[in-house]
Amino acid sequence: MRNILLLGAGMSCSTLIKYLLDHSEAENWHLHIVDQNLDVILSKLNGHPRGTAHQFDALNAQQRKPHIQDADIVISMLPPKYHVDVAKDCLLYKKHLLTPSYVTDQMRALDQEALDAGVLILNEIGLDPGIDHMSAMKIIDEIRFQGGKLSAFKSYCGGLIAPIADNNLWHYKFTWNPSNVILAGQGSTACYLENKQVKYINYHRLFEQLDTINIEGYGEFEGYANRDSLSYIDVYGLKDIETIFRGTLRRPPFCQAWNVFVRLGMTENHFKMKDSELLSPRQFLNSFLPFDPERTVEQKLTQYLGDDKQLYELFSSLDFFNSKLPIGLANASPAELLQQILVKKWKLQENDKDMVVMYHEFIFSKGTEQFKIESSLVVEGKDQRYTAMSDTVGLPLAIATKLILNENIKGRGVQIPVNSEVYLPILNELADFGIIFTESLKTI
Amino acid sequence: MRNILLLGAGMSCSTLIKYLLDHSEAENWHLHIVDQNLDVILSKLNGHPRGTAHQFDALNAQQRKPHIQDADIVISMLPPKYHVDVAKDCLLYKKHLLTPSYVTDQMRALDQEALDAGVLILNEIGLDPGIDHMSAMKIIDEIRFQGGKLSAFKSYCGGLIAPIADNNLWHYKFTWNPSNVILAGQGSTACYLENKQVKYINYHRLFEQLDTINIEGYGEFEGYANRDSLSYIDVYGLKDIETIFRGTLRRPPFCQAWNVFVRLGMTENHFKMKDSELLSPRQFLNSFLPFDPERTVEQKLTQYLGDDKQLYELFSSLDFFNSKLPIGLANASPAELLQQILVKKWKLQENDKDMVVMYHEFIFSKGTEQFKIESSLVVEGKDQRYTAMSDTVGLPLAIATKLILNENIKGRGVQIPVNSEVYLPILNELADFGIIFTESLKTI
Repeated sequence: MRNILLLGAGMSCSTLIKYLLDHSEAENWHLHIVDQNLDVILSKLNGHPRGTAHQFDALNAQQRKPHIQDADIVISMLPPKYHVDVAKDCLLYKKHLLTPSYVTDQMRALDQEALDAGVLILNEIGLDPGIDHMSAMKIIDEIRFQGGKLSAFKSYCGGLIAPIADNNLWHYKFTWNPSNVILAGQGSTACYLENKQVKYINYHRLFEQLDTINIEGYGEFEGYANRDSLSYIDVYGLKDIETIFRGTLRRPPFCQAWNVFVRLGMTENHFKMKDSELLSPRQFLNSFLPFDPERTVEQKLTQYLGDDKQLYELFSSLDFFNSKLPIGLANASPAELLQQILVKKWKLQENDKDMVVMYHEFIFSKGTEQFKIESSLVVEGKDQRYTAMSDTVGLPLAIATKLILNENIKGRGVQIPVNSEVYLPILNELADFGIIFTESLKTI
Repeated sequence: MRNILLLGAGMSCSTLIKYLLDHSEAENWHLHIVDQNLDVILSKLNGHPRGTAHQFDALNAQQRKPHIQDADIVISMLPPKYHVDVAKDCLLYKKHLLTPSYVTDQMRALDQEALDAGVLILNEIGLDPGIDHMSAMKIIDEIRFQGGKLSAFKSYCGGLIAPIADNNLWHYKFTWNPSNVILAGQGSTACYLENKQVKYINYHRLFEQLDTINIEGYGEFEGYANRDSLSYIDVYGLKDIETIFRGTLRRPPFCQAWNVFVRLGMTENHFKMKDSELLSPRQFLNSFLPFDPERTVEQKLTQYLGDDKQLYELFSSLDFFNSKLPIGLANASPAELLQQILVKKWKLQENDKDMVVMYHEFIFSKGTEQFKIESSLVVEGKDQRYTAMSDTVGLPLAIATKLILNENIKGRGVQIPVNSEVYLPILNELADFGIIFTESLKTI
């Protein structure tokens, strides 16, 4: 019997837990899940004999450590900043660890220690980061193997809603952690390489500089720059690349409208608004519009939007002119108040389904010829539990867990899934679940 | 003999040191100056028998402490974040302390301890903060004393150049710490009160929302919001005020042009630019402009500026299109590179003089009548050593030092100069140095 320890059982764990339980008999696994919320665990274990619920706060090292000691492998679905503490426990007891989160400098610093302990700490093994790395590296390695020279790589991903649920002017609902959506882009200045020129886009221009992406059967998307694309030059081994860009996808005109929140300061999270518990949505908006005794809030916003009536309707649809009810959050930042307004409007409804979209573009030359590969993936969710997000984050984690336990992955140290021993078997098995990229190659 | 200990002898200490030495015989003082740079101290002491130079790093607590123990009063001109450490030493040895910097939460927390020790820690006793508090509080107290009800208070201050030195398109040169100018407004979201509405202006809109101020004989200035104006409601005791705004003054079109740097991200200081040592001014600018193979850097900037030719000339005058010489700073942030470009262009020249401008506006009612008081101050520097900045920062510090040593100021604890026992004698003596406000009162 092999013990799998899962820390955290939130929103995007449904598919992960289902896979692990479905395979538990054949693989002789027992799944231990730690979460503060017992109901969440029990609803996901659904009485399965090979699952055990442990109700405590996984951030409590004292309580966590004996469970790590008893496990054969650990999956951390905790908020990203806590992974390092879990990793240190895993090193202590020589256990492998998986996380779906970006490798931080602190995590990277554990590499030698992990190598010495014979432990694999596999990060970025979800969707984005995760499937993006694996699907891109497969094509990059193929181009290399065939003697091609890659000059440009662009990659986009978005967690969106399926056409069936697409019934608001923003073409958006929350399909994962809302605060990550509100704060998107605030961590650091985005940078990328275009024709060998390093380009920087700061937060307050991020939603202004957009690429247009068309996906057959799904129409038009827009992409804004996602974090530091330059770091992937080393990660993907692309020393001579001329253009590298990673972006996040939305449906137009989401970015144009979101940029209004950004520009007005309504997404800021570093200060608390005065008397925030008293603010109505109207007052909240008005706090960021210049004082003008001659104009109503509606008129001031109209003016700010340059008389763009279509754009105005997006804000009107969010009930921003309501002065009756306070938003109802004490000691809150603009970002927290905005989130509170948006979660009411952008909640997934009973029959709504989410959708994950990924798109890669590669330009490469072989001899005197130039080629372009486009590779795209669209996954629609099954229902509110088995969402596209839950599938695309959970399945790579689950499959990697199986491969590590069965010693099909032999790498050690702090890793991300860019090596073929990891990405090939995972991409193969993802195809069994309908997670399949559509590829096209043409001469340009 | 009373010992005065001055920590730091930089740019804005010339007038402070001169005053202390000029009065040292009559007041029986001895001035001890600590700085890492011996030449700086010696040039300012100029062989005066009542001055002693101590060459060491004043941040070194070990070396600093015995000097604080020997002093009767301490003036800290160190960078603001180090004042708290000095304050703790002063509490240990029960010595009064003066600083020209904003009171931080850490400093405020020492209030009870200072009261218990019978020590005065007088902060914000320079120009802005300093003379602004004193001149405003004098008028606010007068209005109150006469039974007036203050409804609006706006206050602006700027460290600028005198008309004689005003010979570039930006109407600006560095008259104090350049990095404070580059980073101005980045600390926190500005907020103020207008007609009882709290308004917020985030950093990337700060230089777009401007007031126009006219000062007789000096023409037009523009003011942008300075930090948290709301905090002055308590500090000045203005519980029922409807409008309170504090701003920073520049000459038009400085703010419009500076906003381009802000919007493009060229003032950011939280990341280092890749290969910064190789970047020419042209490449530096181009890093923030969207990629466009069809346009030159000149054309892209022209387009970004909306074809505003006059504005374009401001950037052209800074040599931003030069691709020949690198800026020459390794591992540098955008803000550091921008500073390096600007200090070459905005350096005070041999015969240049600086200028400090302050403007207050008060609206108040008495019975059924409404009144407006305008109060303004313009100070031009004498030369490059005795600048307006050095006078207006140094004289309040120096005079307050004298008043404390002579027991004319009896307040204790962590204070700022808003009480009449402090502001009245200081404003009176400032007038002897030509630092005099022009006041006008009219019915509105």
